[in-house]
Amino acid sequence: MADEVTLLDFWPSPFGMRVRLALTLKGIDYIYKEENLQQKSDLLLKSNPIHKKIPTMIHNGNPISESLIMVQYIDETWPKTSSLLPSDPYGRSQSRFWADYVDKKVYDCGRRTCFAKSPEEGDAAVKELLECLKVVECELGEKLYFGGENLGYVDVALVPFYSWFYAYESFGGLSIRDECPKIVAWAKRCLENESVAKSLPDQQKVYEFVVMMRKKFGVE
Amino acid sequence: MADEVTLLDFWPSPFGMRVRLALTLKGIDYIYKEENLQQKSDLLLKSNPIHKKIPTMIHNGNPISESLIMVQYIDETWPKTSSLLPSDPYGRSQSRFWADYVDKKVYDCGRRTCFAKSPEEGDAAVKELLECLKVVECELGEKLYFGGENLGYVDVALVPFYSWFYAYESFGGLSIRDECPKIVAWAKRCLENESVAKSLPDQQKVYEFVVMMRKKFGVE
Repeated sequence: MADEVTLLDFWPSPFGMRVRLALTLKGIDYIYKEENLQQKSDLLLKSNPIHKKIPTMIHNGNPISESLIMVQYIDETWPKTSSLLPSDPYGRSQSRFWADYVDKKVYDCGRRTCFAKSPEEGDAAVKELLECLKVVECELGEKLYFGGENLGYVDVALVPFYSWFYAYESFGGLSIRDECPKIVAWAKRCLENESVAKSLPDQQKVYEFVVMMRKKFGVE
Repeated sequence: MADEVTLLDFWPSPFGMRVRLALTLKGIDYIYKEENLQQKSDLLLKSNPIHKKIPTMIHNGNPISESLIMVQYIDETWPKTSSLLPSDPYGRSQSRFWADYVDKKVYDCGRRTCFAKSPEEGDAAVKELLECLKVVECELGEKLYFGGENLGYVDVALVPFYSWFYAYESFGGLSIRDECPKIVAWAKRCLENESVAKSLPDQQKVYEFVVMMRKKFGVE
């Protein structure tokens, strides 16, 4: 049976970008369905009845949710192309640790940077965001990618947030380029990869989305 | 080289219990070191510099953190005994989904049930806790274990919370046995397994720990 992959997604989602990137890196064709989050499709509600969240992927009728779980599933299901996770258990545990760190820290700090309801809240979010990015920069060290010589699991987990950097900088009043030059250089290196370039929306477009959402949330 | 495994832990931690249980199920001898969370050991701070949290495990000098990542590491490092995760990628994705659900929902609702600062907060926590437990009960269905005929990854992720059930019931004013009889029957079935019985502290002991913590937090 030919593989049938459908991705229920929403374009600015860094979690959705991860799955798009993993599928593209593996060369898997998929049907992309943009969800209206105000009126979620029956397919989304049926496929992810617990969280009702995008991204959700359906592979040959089997639904899978949670972006990092999807990326691991993609890596394990199509192992013929180069693997995203290391081959040894210890390497895998460390990749999982850093992807989990990105999930627990970077997303939340970034969201609070964009949608802070007071200057104090905004300042605290920016401080935390920079701390997080410096921690991941330190972990990157002198490596080309978190995966070493090639893009790996942690690269796939983190690089989508680069699409949000301009929004973080604009609303947080910070320069990530000045504070974390190695992370910006790494992200630009990732973007030289065709799959990354194809999977990530433009920073300006994400910025405009954040402007719209801030108005909607009454932040301005 | 013989395997040297050290576990830095704190006895009431359901996350620590997961790792103890996984190691015991796999028949791995380990050195248990109880941490004083008010004065963490140099070994913990050095082994988990990012989160500085228990449990942290050190295997032949290599530190690993985050309980579910540790359980996966244990499963992948000692594959000779029966595997905790299913052999197929889809089964693994579903096990990871449910373990993640337990992490994101059950722990938080349970903590808020024990340490609510107002009756309203407590009532909301209890309502959410019951909803969560009913969702996992529904997922268990008629299976003996979440892993099917044998204990698996989701069982290891969830069963430690059984040690906290009496505390949840006492401070939340609910009967989990009445509301979720299948989950209580499942937990008792798990406790018939010698490894589970050895790895989980008594409910009364956890209750007394919660009483002490509530006094410390000024909840009463």
